[in-house]
Amino acid sequence: MKKRVPTINCCTPLAGSSLSESDAVELERLFRVMADRHRLKILNILLRAAGQPVCVCEFTDQLRLAQPTVSYHLKQLRDAGLLDREKRGTFAYFRVRPEAMERLHALVEPAALARAS
Amino acid sequence: MKKRVPTINCCTPLAGSSLSESDAVELERLFRVMADRHRLKILNILLRAAGQPVCVCEFTDQLRLAQPTVSYHLKQLRDAGLLDREKRGTFAYFRVRPEAMERLHALVEPAALARAS
Repeated sequence: MKKRVPTINCCTPLAGSSLSESDAVELERLFRVMADRHRLKILNILLRAAGQPVCVCEFTDQLRLAQPTVSYHLKQLRDAGLLDREKRGTFAYFRVRPEAMERLHALVEPAALARAS
Repeated sequence: MKKRVPTINCCTPLAGSSLSESDAVELERLFRVMADRHRLKILNILLRAAGQPVCVCEFTDQLRLAQPTVSYHLKQLRDAGLLDREKRGTFAYFRVRPEAMERLHALVEPAALARAS
């Protein structure tokens, strides 16, 4: 398995200094991870859980998807640095990394426009 | 051409109430528009212009892409409701819609996590 910096830690904000080719590629990767209805629902469920860990079994129930599919989406989100995973007995539990969501929020902050107004 | 509400106006925030199927589909569409290195560079250029309109010719220069390719990407961003377009003589000028960037920023606000801490 490749060891790489989680995507969420990659880049200058969109409204920041000139976006380099490598930053643009990393941001593209991050938004690709976000650009999936099932992963968005997973994030929504986790954000609504307000930091409490959510069992993988809850996603299969709520999303009406098979566990391998849910696990695939959870892996995409984890590889991007958006989620933490914890084993409890036979089940895995997930939660959003608060610092990752803060980072995502900061990446799309319309700072330059705000400074101009 | 289909007439539809710009994608950016679609949805409850990611950390808001339970994400419906239709909201998840619209958010997926929005993040797909963002998930492209060239469109991210276009947004970066426009955000750095701090609300000043930028000529289509500047994108072709800075992105080293042919004008039809640039126009395709600009159309994707416009259809999502992220950009405004203005004709001046023979050239088209573009700027980011400040309310659209505010909306994007709000869509990924980690509000539920913030309330929990």
